[in-house]
Parts: sequence; structure tokens; C-alpha cells
Amino acid sequence: MEFVEETRDRGVVERRFDLAVGEEIVPGILWSPEGRDGLRPTVLVGHGGTQHKRTPNVLGLARRYVRHLGYAAVALDAPDHGDRVTDREAAEAARRNLERRMAEGHDGRPAGLGLDQAQLAAMADRQAKGVAEWRALLDALPAEGLGAGPFGYWGVSMGTAIGLPFVASEPRITAAVLGLAGLRGLPGSGALEAAARRLTVPVLFLFQWDDELMTRESGLALFDAFGSREKTMHVNPGRHVQIPLFERDAAEQFFARHLGVPADQPV
Amino acid sequence: MEFVEETRDRGVVERRFDLAVGEEIVPGILWSPEGRDGLRPTVLVGHGGTQHKRTPNVLGLARRYVRHLGYAAVALDAPDHGDRVTDREAAEAARRNLERRMAEGHDGRPAGLGLDQAQLAAMADRQAKGVAEWRALLDALPAEGLGAGPFGYWGVSMGTAIGLPFVASEPRITAAVLGLAGLRGLPGSGALEAAARRLTVPVLFLFQWDDELMTRESGLALFDAFGSREKTMHVNPGRHVQIPLFERDAAEQFFARHLGVPADQPV
Repeated sequence: MEFVEETRDRGVVERRFDLAVGEEIVPGILWSPEGRDGLRPTVLVGHGGTQHKRTPNVLGLARRYVRHLGYAAVALDAPDHGDRVTDREAAEAARRNLERRMAEGHDGRPAGLGLDQAQLAAMADRQAKGVAEWRALLDALPAEGLGAGPFGYWGVSMGTAIGLPFVASEPRITAAVLGLAGLRGLPGSGALEAAARRLTVPVLFLFQWDDELMTRESGLALFDAFGSREKTMHVNPGRHVQIPLFERDAAEQFFARHLGVPADQPV
Repeated sequence: MEFVEETRDRGVVERRFDLAVGEEIVPGILWSPEGRDGLRPTVLVGHGGTQHKRTPNVLGLARRYVRHLGYAAVALDAPDHGDRVTDREAAEAARRNLERRMAEGHDGRPAGLGLDQAQLAAMADRQAKGVAEWRALLDALPAEGLGAGPFGYWGVSMGTAIGLPFVASEPRITAAVLGLAGLRGLPGSGALEAAARRLTVPVLFLFQWDDELMTRESGLALFDAFGSREKTMHVNPGRHVQIPLFERDAAEQFFARHLGVPADQPV
């Protein structure tokens, strides 16, 4: 990890870094409590499709984990996202396609992701790369004094498409918040189901009852497939990007329960 | 409300009372923070079938609301339960029947409540009486300095069978935790569905994924029927009486969000 920039905002140190993974440079951000070094739980935050490492929701969660829990938090730009977009035109087209699908799907008629074969292959490729990059990040964290963890993962939608196979194959992750994903109607469901069945860590699964991109049945089937002994599904009304803000409190409580709160965190 | 006994335990005052409702005397308990008078949020806790006003789960929740949130809490013996059992033999038979059904139902084959016509009629009667008694309690609370509320309701299983029609028809209740109930397979589903559709307050609905007394579909259908704009369903693996303890934290957070925390409660 090579740190390229540092800013501070009300008790939160934010450090931009570049992580070399094979031939690629993956840009990321590490947030931590100002003036406090030493081991602390760290949450990896995976953003959604068309978003990036500092999208408002990711930034909000990261600051919250630092301020409320005394944790560190890390985000990476997923493959082909954020600073890693090389083909602006293709990225724009993907964003427009997603927005169109979201506009089409409603009244219990989810539109699906609407991807052709080439796009499905690209997505599978992004998933595999994304998993390898999170793993490389965990390998790099000891040099930053954050090697002991414990580590949590938060990621919904594309953050689950990449995060579920990552968490299921990564013993260093202790607890995961996943969501906005399902087994049917989502491309690559076979691999996703296999990963779900391998999962053993506690999982909080967030699902939107009126998700315009997937069916209720697909979400329930994914929850059902999780192999974890402790798993909880939170279902709320509303569309894909309308997870209620109070679910941030629930995720915080979930991480506090499983990762603990560091001794230097004021009550 | 006539108070008949008072005990204190680590900051919690527990007062046994008798509430006259029509011809009947309904025994109840009021818990409140020791040494602190004045208005505060109050949670009504409805117990489950074969349980009573001071069953361990009810007592645990009530003390928690007092100690953690500075609330008051109230429980009543439901009709034909607790100190109101007049026919010990019938109560024992009902308990044995329920236990047998719970032992029979598993592996995705819920046994249902297994009630005959006479038992269904008795249950409908208990529901109507239970609703009237909670209402009478709210009418009586102003005399105890707790009239302004806000009021919440917590009750699962029979606590929902009585609590859902109560909350749906009672504008003084601001937020409700319900659960372990469903629309299909549960007797009186028509009335329950009508009540669910009338519901407008925020609701947290707790459901067990392997409930031996009802199907997953019945629980999802009930959640779906709730008319409330804010409603969240928490699904956990396990059987009817195995709601994870961490759902107590979730309910606490839910009430704190909707009923507030009184100014005299230490942070």
C-alpha cells in the first residue's frame, strides 16, 4: 500500500492509497480514528455497481465505523469502477442501462439486470478480480498495524456479488453484512449459491421488499442458502437503493457484537 | 389500578396491581425506574400462550426497558393465563397440546396450532377480551402519571394474536414489535389480516425461519399485509421459541428511535 494523500475531518483520518495487485494498481481509502494508533477491528466496505470507493454511502458508513466504534474502514475501487474506469463511454452506457432497468421494474415486476452474454462474462471477470483484490488488501494491512483484525465486510448489490465469494473463501473475515442480491434472476447464481452454502460466519442480510432488480423469492432463496449458523435477514419495503437509514444502526450493532469495540473507544 | 405489592431490584421498581375491567380483575405488573417520577415512554409487553405476566422473557424485557432506556413497562395476565387460570386441568391440557404440536412440527412441516372448533372460539374470545383489557390499562395509566406516553407494544405469538388487533385499533400506541405469527395456518386469519392492513405505526416483525407452528409463507404474507409505511421483518433460523437474544437489542433500538429516550436517563 502506497499512501498518496491524507486528510482529516472531525476525528477521522482519511488516507488515499494505491494497492498493487499483479499488474494493476487498485486505488483505495483507509479511514481510522485520529490520534489513536494500535490494533482495532477493521471493516471492508464494498461499493455497488456504477459507484466508487468514496460514494456517499460508503463514506458515510466508513466515518460512522470510525467515529461510533473506533474501528478502521477500507474501501477499494472495484474493477472497472471509480478511478479504474478506462472506457468512459462503456461505463456511461452501463449506468444508463442500470437506470433504465430500475425505471422499468416496479409493481412486483422486477426487470432483472438486463445483461447480454458479453456483459455477463465481464461481470464474472470483475467478481474474480474483486475477490483477489480484497484478499491482497488483507495481505497488505499488517504493514499498517491493522493485521490482527478482526475484520468485517459490508457490501450490498455488486458489493455482495463480489463480497459473498470473497467472505466465503476468506477465513480472516469474521462477520459480514450483505444484501440486495438473490439466487434466481441474478447472473452467476450457481457460483453465488455455492459460495452462500460455504459461508460460516455470522451474516446480516439486507433485502428490499420492492426491489426492482430482483424477486422476493430470489432473495429468500439466497438467505436460505447461507450456511452460517447465525444469519439474520432484514426485510424493508422500498426499492433497490432505498434501504432505510436505520439499517446503518443495525449493521453497527451487528459489527460491535461480532468484532467487539476497542478499549480506546470512548463510551 | 390498585397496587397490591411493591419490590425493588437494582434500580427497577416492580409494582403488582389489579385492574378492574368490567366484571373481571386483571392482574398486572408495572415496572419503572427507581427514584425517578415523571412522564416517560411506556412499553406494554404481551406474553405468549401458556405464559404469564412475569414469565422470564417478559420480566427480562421489562427490566431492560427500565434500565437501558429509562422507560416504564407493563404486563397483564392474558385471559385464562397466569393468575387468571380457573380450570387448571384445561390449562394443563392446552399446554401439553402445544408442546406436542411443537415436538411434531419440524423439517419444514409445521404442525399448526392443532385446535378444534371449540378451542378456536375460545381463542377468538380471549383475543377480544385481551384487546379490551389493554385499552382499559391505557385508560388507567394517567392516574399513575404515565398518561402522556408515548406508548409502545411488544408481543409475539399469542402476544401478536391479541396485540395486532389492539395496536391496529388504538391510536395511543406509537410503535409495535410483533412476531411469530402468520396469515395462513393460524386460526382467525381473516380478522388478523384486516387488522394488519389497518396498521399504520412503525412495526418490527420478528419471524423464525424454522417455526414449527407456522409456514414461512404465512409469516411473509402477514408482513406483506401490514399497512405501515415503516415496517421491518427480522428473519432468523430456529424454532418458535428460539428468537436470538440479540433481537432484544434490536427491539430496544427500535423503541428508542420511535418513543425517544427520557431526559433523565443517563447516557
